[in-house]
Amino acid sequence: MESLEEFKAFIKKGHLEYRPNISVDCVIFGYRAGQLKVLLVRNKLLTSWCLPGGYIRKTETLDEAAARITKNRTGIGNLYLHQFKAFGDPNRNKTKSVDMNKLSELVELDSKQLGWLEGPTITIGFYAITDIVQAIPAPDIFSIECAWFSATDLPKLGYDHNELVREALFSMRIHLYHFPIGKNLLPEKFTLREIKEFYEAMSGKELNASNFPNKLISLGLIRKTKEKRNIGAHRSPVYYTFNKKVYEKALKEGLMLV
Amino acid sequence: MESLEEFKAFIKKGHLEYRPNISVDCVIFGYRAGQLKVLLVRNKLLTSWCLPGGYIRKTETLDEAAARITKNRTGIGNLYLHQFKAFGDPNRNKTKSVDMNKLSELVELDSKQLGWLEGPTITIGFYAITDIVQAIPAPDIFSIECAWFSATDLPKLGYDHNELVREALFSMRIHLYHFPIGKNLLPEKFTLREIKEFYEAMSGKELNASNFPNKLISLGLIRKTKEKRNIGAHRSPVYYTFNKKVYEKALKEGLMLV
Repeated sequence: MESLEEFKAFIKKGHLEYRPNISVDCVIFGYRAGQLKVLLVRNKLLTSWCLPGGYIRKTETLDEAAARITKNRTGIGNLYLHQFKAFGDPNRNKTKSVDMNKLSELVELDSKQLGWLEGPTITIGFYAITDIVQAIPAPDIFSIECAWFSATDLPKLGYDHNELVREALFSMRIHLYHFPIGKNLLPEKFTLREIKEFYEAMSGKELNASNFPNKLISLGLIRKTKEKRNIGAHRSPVYYTFNKKVYEKALKEGLMLV
Repeated sequence: MESLEEFKAFIKKGHLEYRPNISVDCVIFGYRAGQLKVLLVRNKLLTSWCLPGGYIRKTETLDEAAARITKNRTGIGNLYLHQFKAFGDPNRNKTKSVDMNKLSELVELDSKQLGWLEGPTITIGFYAITDIVQAIPAPDIFSIECAWFSATDLPKLGYDHNELVREALFSMRIHLYHFPIGKNLLPEKFTLREIKEFYEAMSGKELNASNFPNKLISLGLIRKTKEKRNIGAHRSPVYYTFNKKVYEKALKEGLMLV
C-alpha cells in the first residue's frame, strides 16, 4: 500500500481482485553464524508482531502470491519459498489482532464494504530460508518495522502465527534430510565445523562431529579444497566447498541424509 | 446428498454454510499384498474419474472437512488423513470436469445462484493409507461408482487430480522415512519378506533384503515372535510383529528409517 487512497480501494473493492477468506503467510527463517531466526513484521493496524502475509489475487498462483507478499511486506525478494501447510480452524482469525479503532480512524467503516474480509479465513503457510540480511521494509504506509527474532524464543504473535512457525520448523526439519541445503547460507568455502554448526541450528539437534560431515563427504555433496584456514600454529582446518553438480542433482531427485 | 431437493438447496444456499472457492480433495491409498492403489469416484455430474472431494463448512476445521467428505463420498471412515499441499493455479478448475448439460437438467441454472461456485477455487489435498476394503459408496444420489486403481497407472482424472496424486505420493514417501507405518495394513504377524514388500510398494523402490529389515529390528520397531510360517520342509520363515510401545512413541516423536 503506497497511499491511504489505495488502502481504501482495497477495503472497498478488494473482492474484485483478491480471493476472499483465503490468505498466505510466510515464515522467513534467517541463518547467520549458528543462529536461526524468524522475520516478523509490525504495522499500525496490528496489535501484535505477525508473520508477513496477505491476500491472494484471483489471477495468481499460490507461489506467486507468496513471493509478491513477502517482497512487498519485507523488501526481501528471490526467496525459495516452500508451501508447508494450510490452516483452517474456524476460530483462527477471531482473535483481535487488528486494531479496529485505528482501522476506523483511517477508513470510514461500512459493514457492506468490509464483508469480503469477514468470516473464517484459511491461510496457506510458506517458509523460506535466507542469509540474515538487512531486511528493508517496503514502502507500505502501515509498516512500523520488520525484525529478526530467535526461532526458539518468539513473542506471542497475532492470529495462530506461533503455530505456523512451529509447523514450518517441523516441515523444514524433515525437508532437511531429503534435500541439500546451505549453498546460499554458508560462505563459498567453509570448515567442517561451520557446516556442522549450520545443520545443528537448522535441525535443532546436536550432531556427531565426525559421522555427520563424513556422511556429507560420502554422498559427494561437499568436497575438500586445497586451502586451509590459518587460525594458529596447531589449528588450521581444511576448507570444504559444495560439489555443485551433486548438489543440483540432489535438489531435483532428493537424497537421504541420515 | 440424499435427494434432489437437498442438491438444489446446496446450489442455491450453499454460500451460507460452506466456504466459497475452497475445497478439499482426498487421495486414499489402498494396500493389499504388494499392491498400492488409489480410490477414485465417478458421479453423474462429472465427465471423468476424480478424487473424492467437496466444500468445507464455515464451522469445521480442514481435518474435519476431509474426514466428513471422504466418509460421505466413499463410505470409508476412520481414516488417518494427512494434509499434504494446497493447489491454487488460477486455471485449475477451468477444465470442463462438470457436465453442465446434466447439471442443467437437474437444476434450473441461474447465474446468481451459481455465483458462489464460480471463479478460481483452491483445493487442499489430504492423503490416507488404508487396507483395501470393499469401499461402500455412500447413499449420494449422484454416485455411480467408486473403485481402486493402480497408483502407478491412473486414467486421466478430472481437474488437476493427477497432479494431486503425484504430490500425495511424494509427501507420503517422505513421511515414510520419519514415521512408522503398517500396523493396520499388515497382518498382526508377518514375515520379513512381507514387510519388505510392503515398504517397497509404499516407497516405489527396491530395498535391500537384509539391511532393510535389520534397520527395523535395530530401531526396535518390529520384533521376532516364536512362531514360524510352515511353507515347506526347508522354508519356514519366522513371524515378526510390531513393538507397539516403540511404534506409538515413534508416531509421536518421529524416527529415522534409512
